[in-house]
Amino acid sequence: MKNGLPVLLFGLLILFSGISGAEELPVSEATSECLECHTITHPGIVESWQKSRHSMITPKQGMSVEGLARKVSSKTVPDALQSNVVGCAECHALRPGAHADTFDHNGHDIHVVVSPDDCAVCHSTEAGQYAKNIMSHAFNNLNGNPLFGKLEVSITGRKKFKDGKIAFEPPDDETRAETCYYCHGTRLKVAGTEVRDTELAGEMEFPVIEGWPNQGVGRVNLDGSRGSCSACHTRHTFAIEMARKPYTCKECHVGPDVPAFKVYAASKHGNIFSAMNKSWNFDAVPWTIGQDFTAPTCAACHISLLVNTDGDVVSERTHQMNNRLAWRIFGLVYATPHPRSPDTTVIRNKDGQPLPASLDGEFATEFLIDEKEMNKRRQTMQAACLNCHGSSWVNGQWQRFENTIRETNSDIQMATGIMDDIWKKGLADLKTNPFDEPIEKKWTDAWQLYANTTRFASAMGGGGDYGVYAGGRYQLSQALLEINEWRTVREQITGGSK
Amino acid sequence: MKNGLPVLLFGLLILFSGISGAEELPVSEATSECLECHTITHPGIVESWQKSRHSMITPKQGMSVEGLARKVSSKTVPDALQSNVVGCAECHALRPGAHADTFDHNGHDIHVVVSPDDCAVCHSTEAGQYAKNIMSHAFNNLNGNPLFGKLEVSITGRKKFKDGKIAFEPPDDETRAETCYYCHGTRLKVAGTEVRDTELAGEMEFPVIEGWPNQGVGRVNLDGSRGSCSACHTRHTFAIEMARKPYTCKECHVGPDVPAFKVYAASKHGNIFSAMNKSWNFDAVPWTIGQDFTAPTCAACHISLLVNTDGDVVSERTHQMNNRLAWRIFGLVYATPHPRSPDTTVIRNKDGQPLPASLDGEFATEFLIDEKEMNKRRQTMQAACLNCHGSSWVNGQWQRFENTIRETNSDIQMATGIMDDIWKKGLADLKTNPFDEPIEKKWTDAWQLYANTTRFASAMGGGGDYGVYAGGRYQLSQALLEINEWRTVREQITGGSK
Amino acid sequence: MKNGLPVLLFGLLILFSGISGAEELPVSEATSECLECHTITHPGIVESWQKSRHSMITPKQGMSVEGLARKVSSKTVPDALQSNVVGCAECHALRPGAHADTFDHNGHDIHVVVSPDDCAVCHSTEAGQYAKNIMSHAFNNLNGNPLFGKLEVSITGRKKFKDGKIAFEPPDDETRAETCYYCHGTRLKVAGTEVRDTELAGEMEFPVIEGWPNQGVGRVNLDGSRGSCSACHTRHTFAIEMARKPYTCKECHVGPDVPAFKVYAASKHGNIFSAMNKSWNFDAVPWTIGQDFTAPTCAACHISLLVNTDGDVVSERTHQMNNRLAWRIFGLVYATPHPRSPDTTVIRNKDGQPLPASLDGEFATEFLIDEKEMNKRRQTMQAACLNCHGSSWVNGQWQRFENTIRETNSDIQMATGIMDDIWKKGLADLKTNPFDEPIEKKWTDAWQLYANTTRFASAMGGGGDYGVYAGGRYQLSQALLEINEWRTVREQITGGSK
Repeated sequence: MKNGLPVLLFGLLILFSGISGAEELPVSEATSECLECHTITHPGIVESWQKSRHSMITPKQGMSVEGLARKVSSKTVPDALQSNVVGCAECHALRPGAHADTFDHNGHDIHVVVSPDDCAVCHSTEAGQYAKNIMSHAFNNLNGNPLFGKLEVSITGRKKFKDGKIAFEPPDDETRAETCYYCHGTRLKVAGTEVRDTELAGEMEFPVIEGWPNQGVGRVNLDGSRGSCSACHTRHTFAIEMARKPYTCKECHVGPDVPAFKVYAASKHGNIFSAMNKSWNFDAVPWTIGQDFTAPTCAACHISLLVNTDGDVVSERTHQMNNRLAWRIFGLVYATPHPRSPDTTVIRNKDGQPLPASLDGEFATEFLIDEKEMNKRRQTMQAACLNCHGSSWVNGQWQRFENTIRETNSDIQMATGIMDDIWKKGLADLKTNPFDEPIEKKWTDAWQLYANTTRFASAMGGGGDYGVYAGGRYQLSQALLEINEWRTVREQITGGSK
Repeated sequence: MKNGLPVLLFGLLILFSGISGAEELPVSEATSECLECHTITHPGIVESWQKSRHSMITPKQGMSVEGLARKVSSKTVPDALQSNVVGCAECHALRPGAHADTFDHNGHDIHVVVSPDDCAVCHSTEAGQYAKNIMSHAFNNLNGNPLFGKLEVSITGRKKFKDGKIAFEPPDDETRAETCYYCHGTRLKVAGTEVRDTELAGEMEFPVIEGWPNQGVGRVNLDGSRGSCSACHTRHTFAIEMARKPYTCKECHVGPDVPAFKVYAASKHGNIFSAMNKSWNFDAVPWTIGQDFTAPTCAACHISLLVNTDGDVVSERTHQMNNRLAWRIFGLVYATPHPRSPDTTVIRNKDGQPLPASLDGEFATEFLIDEKEMNKRRQTMQAACLNCHGSSWVNGQWQRFENTIRETNSDIQMATGIMDDIWKKGLADLKTNPFDEPIEKKWTDAWQLYANTTRFASAMGGGGDYGVYAGGRYQLSQALLEINEWRTVREQITGGSK
Repeated sequence: MKNGLPVLLFGLLILFSGISGAEELPVSEATSECLECHTITHPGIVESWQKSRHSMITPKQGMSVEGLARKVSSKTVPDALQSNVVGCAECHALRPGAHADTFDHNGHDIHVVVSPDDCAVCHSTEAGQYAKNIMSHAFNNLNGNPLFGKLEVSITGRKKFKDGKIAFEPPDDETRAETCYYCHGTRLKVAGTEVRDTELAGEMEFPVIEGWPNQGVGRVNLDGSRGSCSACHTRHTFAIEMARKPYTCKECHVGPDVPAFKVYAASKHGNIFSAMNKSWNFDAVPWTIGQDFTAPTCAACHISLLVNTDGDVVSERTHQMNNRLAWRIFGLVYATPHPRSPDTTVIRNKDGQPLPASLDGEFATEFLIDEKEMNKRRQTMQAACLNCHGSSWVNGQWQRFENTIRETNSDIQMATGIMDDIWKKGLADLKTNPFDEPIEKKWTDAWQLYANTTRFASAMGGGGDYGVYAGGRYQLSQALLEINEWRTVREQITGGSK
């Protein structure tokens, strides 16, 4: 109710300003053609688009915005695109020669899958940054890493029972597309064409795309580009409001291996967001700390362009999220400094494995950022914190976080040391696959679920339930004890051999 | 703030239209009498009702609505009810002869528990559909199935320690009412009457009702009807807004055995809902895709009357939810085609067990819907999807889903095969109860928790964390390995006998 | 949209009333000085404060409020504070002699950590109640209990591998601060001073505070007081709206040991909150049942001043939350009647242990509230329920709840009985630490996670998933079976000795 005044004024403003709606905005002829049928066949996405900024502004208007409020980062936009709103054809008929799925559709060269390189026509800076973001390489960082392949097959593979044992065979493509690669992104491929009977135009031919549908962050697109902007900027509204709310990140960051959303939602920041965000302004660019929002969401710390109430820049916008991240705290046996290259398949640890640390915990330093870069990233991240917290608060929080990285790494060193003994004694088989036996799964629980959860609780929550009983140190301690007990009991039963 | 205009216009409309509030609406004499005391003794529910549509419209007005917007589905409503708003007495004094809990209350024949057959007086279509819904049979489908009874007792039963073993005895009624039957519904029974001292009227006599309170979906009511409309249409506002939001379904669909809400909340659809629903219209009937909402909630896919922006019907309203469901993906050892009859106690598998598949995974086909009916239901469900997604998207999603059903069933076949060996070798006891030993619990984990979660992740999320690390394939693979390891170790320790 | 009228009227009211904003409110000279720099260096918290009631009203105005709406509970407030709004200096320069962290800051005696005794200057009743609340003693109730210390070290301690075993050493302070004591509160201590280079004033000296940052409910402050008001009344808006929403409680009550938020969010009450709270009034004092809100939040049942629609008091406001609580249902081996004293370190069970029940389940009655006090608290709690529910409903719910307390206690008695056998036979070591071996962890799972979750599901949800498959009776039964199986197998393997 305390928003009565702005609502009223805004209402009066609209009443008397004579703005009369979207119909007067210039829609291209091609898009008008699209809309003729698709308003009937796909009213949901047409309506979503109607509510989008894309349907309400032309690139020319977007380019006339100056300063921090500007969203069109490209310095030039092709003339042909400048004077119409960004509709169906502007994206789906863009760069037709570049897309393997381009097909003739009522006389237009249309492609199904819009890629970051399409978006780059207007948003070149963001696309360029994102290409350097580790997330854009998520497909190959997993698919191209033979060790991760073993982990994948031990989780999602087809199981065969043979000689009293369960063996894992590679998963089928459909399973792959809805497990790891749902988030990492699939590799799209045109497999041919098919004719479908359509409601409005009878038989029409369409491309058949393997790996489709998918909106994973590292999708390999049909023009060779990597990523999917709609992973976060959900089609077809592409609302910055949605990208800035934590639910977007939750799509891939909620499970016990990477419980960012759950930790956030139970943190003081998450509490403030949940209780108060209905009165925040999620559309403002730049985003003013305190005025537009009073606690950070995921985007505030990792991506958004933030300013203080004087309009001074606090954090530059980045779509290369890792340039605010000193540490990589999940997904691997140990937390390590962030990799130098977004392509992590190039990493080799001292034992030649494609991992940023050896199994005994030594960092593969030459492939990781150095202390200086870590400090720079730490400062970039902390710049936002310092708008609401004194430096002793921020430093205290950071010290605890780095202490937790050391402690959880130390715990995993112990767990892996016990595993090493188990492997050496032949109680489990390291060589074939280090992840596909019961005791190896328990070891995976320790680093992949509990150490990760503990670190997220520290980094984003400052502690609390997720650092203790909710998949944190309690379960981590328990797993260590159970791994060691298993070793002892197996030795007792078998006399030391498997 | 972008809602300023409608808010302003709506405000002005109210200011000048002279609508002056609820007090001029016709309230029956009986309800007025109720309100005299209950406004004082139960102000919370009276206020809730004041905010309800029931307090603002008479059945006569409701029946004058034509077309898709009509909510009173009954063609006729008794004259005596037509001209007053639907207040306390209209429901709690309806059909007094039918209710075993009818009692004299200040000269009125009142019953405590309003049933679907009461609601059917105005909403006959919905009540009729719901009676054919498997949910309305949830009490007896569990209570009347001796095998499920064994599962129930192994979870909620009283434990007795005897001869070094833990044995399960049937749970008491109070435990039953707050475990399985909290959702499935209790069987209500009038156990007598009691006199209570009331604040306003001194001593009064009330019926004592066993199984009360309860709002489970399959509650057996005191007029013999099944179900509780207030399970979803929460008393006493009965807001369609609440029934359409996913929190209602969450009341019973959140745990690892049926994590519909959790999967939804982490899905792209759930993201859109969470981020944007504050500007949606949850009251509109029919519900227009794209205009009123831009992503489905549970209700949109399973229940609601949906239209496209042209007003064409996309999905008919149904309260027989299973008529949009080809597969039954949870609660049982295997996913199977949906049962033909909502009364699942009639089902017998090839081994004579009351299960829709045998323990080795063969479907009890004659009790399940056939391919043709499955196709019909699939198309009914997909009709909604196609408003925002192309058919290659929808087909791709569906293929993955059915692949996941096959794969998870195959995994459970393997787990059950190992169990079969365990049972045959006497390492565990199948006959007394297949669910009450540690290794049987682990097998139950596999099908009841992990296979289910994996299927929900596929069906509603298209994949993601719940399909892998958050109670999905990771834990399913782990459980299979551990079951097999247990078998091996037990054989080593015992030499093959228990 | 149905809020259009009040929004419009409120807007018009503001337009014509000439209220022109915060700048005319009397801000003290000291606070103005603070704001000069801190608006630039900490715009986030300054903005938060600008949105707070503290920035909009003077204590004198607050004290002029009469009746139930009054928020300033102190009968007198020092003259010097009365006529300015409550700004930076009013709190951070209050009672400088009492705070060990008081330091000279641009000529002002400032302390970093504002304590409940500072807040008590205006809010003496709440501070007085809170001091008697068990939560204010949370630091020492854990830190001062040697048995709990053993539990703590077995979870968060540093692990050492020696002689084939994992031993636990005390955790470092940084780990402690982000695990148990994140919620329980740290003990703050001034460790010295440090000079920091500041943006606006060059080098300045600040106190260095051990245990900082922390906002735990039992924080031991630098003036000797206990607690942190900002645990729930988040700085620097201190909005009653936030304290009344369940997200605040979630910060510490979400994990499986105390899943209050998760149970609430899946309950009927939580459903109503989630679906409808956007139209509730969270600012009104007193809080009118039905009118301001239609389902309780945590605060409604445990803290808030509630009235019915006639304005009659239903529940007095309390910050001694336990005076509405008959039972203590979590955190300990058994649920027991609530302790008499908020200092639980004084409790001794019949075996001399600092626990409210002996390990065989007998209550330490003399340290716990008696039946009469339990009844009084039950009635205080139920007074709120009865505004929406008949007494048969409320009694039915309560009977099930107390039945569940008995049943879960009985299950834990069985589990502990088996453990007793394990300890007696030397299969595990009770004396050194009853919590630090794998089988002891499983026993801890049973009481700390599953029995607790089951009780919360009963108390706050009336049942449902959290009472069965989501960490409830299913896992509790499973844990009991596994504990007993472990015992049997260990005896088979070892012949009875460890």
